[in-house]
Formats: sequence, structure tokens, C-alpha cells
Amino acid sequence: MPNPTAAMLVIGDEILSGRTRDSNLNHLAGRLTEVGIDLVEARVVSDKTEAIVGAVNDLRAKVDHVFTSGGIGPTHDDITADCIAESFGVGIDVRDDARELLEAHYARSGSEVTEARLRMARIPDGATLIENPVSVAPGFTIGNVHVMAGVPNVFEAMVASVLPTLTGGTPLLSQSLRVLRGEGDIAGPLRALSEEYSDLSFGSYPFQKDGAYGSNIVVRGTDSERLSEAMVKLTDLFGA
Amino acid sequence: MPNPTAAMLVIGDEILSGRTRDSNLNHLAGRLTEVGIDLVEARVVSDKTEAIVGAVNDLRAKVDHVFTSGGIGPTHDDITADCIAESFGVGIDVRDDARELLEAHYARSGSEVTEARLRMARIPDGATLIENPVSVAPGFTIGNVHVMAGVPNVFEAMVASVLPTLTGGTPLLSQSLRVLRGEGDIAGPLRALSEEYSDLSFGSYPFQKDGAYGSNIVVRGTDSERLSEAMVKLTDLFGA
Repeated sequence: MPNPTAAMLVIGDEILSGRTRDSNLNHLAGRLTEVGIDLVEARVVSDKTEAIVGAVNDLRAKVDHVFTSGGIGPTHDDITADCIAESFGVGIDVRDDARELLEAHYARSGSEVTEARLRMARIPDGATLIENPVSVAPGFTIGNVHVMAGVPNVFEAMVASVLPTLTGGTPLLSQSLRVLRGEGDIAGPLRALSEEYSDLSFGSYPFQKDGAYGSNIVVRGTDSERLSEAMVKLTDLFGA
Repeated sequence: MPNPTAAMLVIGDEILSGRTRDSNLNHLAGRLTEVGIDLVEARVVSDKTEAIVGAVNDLRAKVDHVFTSGGIGPTHDDITADCIAESFGVGIDVRDDARELLEAHYARSGSEVTEARLRMARIPDGATLIENPVSVAPGFTIGNVHVMAGVPNVFEAMVASVLPTLTGGTPLLSQSLRVLRGEGDIAGPLRALSEEYSDLSFGSYPFQKDGAYGSNIVVRGTDSERLSEAMVKLTDLFGA
């Protein structure tokens, strides 16, 4: 059975203006690889309703799971939850279980649950909450879409909450060989090897660092014996 | 006149597997902001023909400029140039001007222009070359699509080659204020200010670091006087 597929949607003007460097994609990609869910696409869109709704509807029809990051805080530019409700054509309102989480949290710290903070308890009808052990305000899952925060440590905690609830596949294994030769020298034999081991995928990633240049050859697959066999041949071809 | 719009397409399995952290999006986003071209979307797709052709055709119909990174090297997994030709429905072959660049370069270093290296001279019919001052093998522009390398220093050099050939718009200016208060406290007044200055955009980005928490408020717009005026009011509201 093929692995389940996934897409990620990063929501936020600050990524597209260059002000902020996204790190959530790299984190999610690594975690999904471990559990055998294939991340096949990622998108970054701005904080605009049309852009978010369009991307959510495109992606949820294409893959088994969509993971979003960003736009679920208390300020006026946090419109993700409303956009997700619009994508699914369902209502959205402050929900009791989410409000209780926030009230208990702010009571402990002596802060007030302002009207703005209550926005974080707005949950689309029919969604399930995703636990947020860092700052309490929950994410949520509706259909095949998992909606999470943009702040990296909160995003990562939410990924850890939601992944155990999903059915994974066969983890993708990878091994790599660092070769101090240019891609132009290795391309021919590498192509031949990739045709012989067509159940594996061979990637070549050139580097230039401190005056040295070469290629990292990465072999990926789900069968560890085949992978080891290919690595032996690769090492024979290009030296240790 | 509104600014020209742009999208970025990052091509590569290594980003989606989590092995490599993309840095080209952040670089391009910053450069485009400086010249007044609005980056409205970014996508990451795998090294698969269908994924690349589909994304290129989607994006080039949506925005004024598409910038791609990755997949133009000499190895079998470098299929971007062929995919771009397919997207535009044009032919592709080794082109004399590109081959001459490679031959001169490898002659200087005493290396051979292997059949694999010649793949880097395959250019879709009707494209214009983009200069690569780092490692010579060129990128290219066809229609409104600018095709560049994935290796960060080569990508950055190609961006520097291609940007001066494009017509920019009004650069987006931004100013920010760091506030040691949670988003829930500032959300109400911030929304009111964003409605008063509806020609500007107000973003709020929470942080938690070394025990301190707060929000960076970023105001963006094209009119420096309006921006300064809003920053004065913002500082009055939330303190220095």
C-alpha cells in the first residue's frame, strides 16, 4: 500500500516579505519522513482570505493530510480559523471547551480573558482540538486539515500532539555519500545505478564550501537491504 | 499603479524530505521587497515532471513573474529545464551559446565537457540566458518564468543578474516596534489603529525568548510619511 500523502500550507505575510525565515516546513518534513507520510507539496500564502481559502481547498482535495501553520493568534491579522470554516462551508464561533482551556490558563497567571484572546477559542463547527502544551490556545483538525500555530515551539508541540493520531506508512530511509567530485563527473555512472535500482531514489546535491567542492549523493527507499546494497556499489564507484 | 506580482517555485525532493532547509525563498523575498515586486505565493514541489509542470502553469497564469530554484544541474534528477519546455509547449536542445560558455569554462580548468555537463546547456527554444558568475552554467528566462539554480550562492548570483532587467514598483517600507506585552493585550487597540490607517498593513508576531514574551508589531506600506505617523501613534499606545 502506498504511503499516505501530505501537504503543508504556511500562512503569513512576514514569510513572503522576507522579514521572517520559515522553519516549520523543515521541522514537519523531518517528522513526516520518520512516520512514513510523504510530504508532496508545500505552499506559502499571504494573510488574505482568498489566498488561504483557495490553497486549502486545492490541497485538501489533492492529498491525505494538510498541515497549516500560522494565523491562529488573537490579533486582527489572524484569520486562519475563519478561512478554514469558509473552506469547509461550516460555521465558526467561540466554543466552550476551547474557552474553558483559555479561562483556566489566564486565571492561573492572573490575566484577563480579553475579547481578543477569546478569538483564539473560535473553532469551526465539527473540528477536534489539537493540544497546545506550550501556550494552551489550541489548534484543531477538521476533515483532513490540521491547523496549527506559526510560532515554532508551539507549532512543534502541536505536531507532536497530532502525529500519533494519524496512520503512518513505511518510513523512508536514506543514506548519503559525500564525494569530492563535481556532479558532471559522477552523473553518468549515477544515472546507470539509479536505473539498476529503480525502486530507490537517487539525489545529487552539489556543494562548495571552504574551497572544496563536490556532491552529496543521497539514496532513499523503504527497503533497508536494497539501500545497503546500493550504498556498497556507490562506494565502489566513487570511492570512500 | 499596483506593484508587479511574483511567485516562487522551489523544486526538490530534499526540501520536502526535511534533509535540506531552503534558504532561497527568504533571499528572494527580501530582494523583491526592495525593488517593489510583491511576492504573493511560494510553492515547493518534488522532482517529478507532473508536479513541476502543473505548478509552473498554475503560477505563470496567476502572477507577473515566476522565479524557480533547483533542478538545473547535470544529474539525472535535474529535470527542471525539460519541464519548463513542456509547460510552454516548446522544444529543448543543447544550445550553442550555452555550450560555448561551458566549453570555455571547463577548458580553463582542464576538465572535460562530459555528456552529463552538456545537459546544463539544454535550453528551451526562445529562452534568454541568465548569467551565472559563480559556476558559469546559465539559468534562463522564458516568458515570465525565470529559471535558476538551487545552490544558494549560485541562486543569489542569478537573482542579482535577473532583477535589474525587470520593472519594479514602489518598494514596500516597513517599521517595527517590539512590545513586551502579549498579543491578547494589544489586539484591541492594534485593530483600531489598523482600521484608521487602512492604507498600511499591520502584522503582529509573538515571541517567547529567554523567559521574556511579547510581540513584534510590523507596519508596512509605501508612503513613508503615513508610516512614520502610524509609528508615533503605535509608540504612544504601547510605550517605547
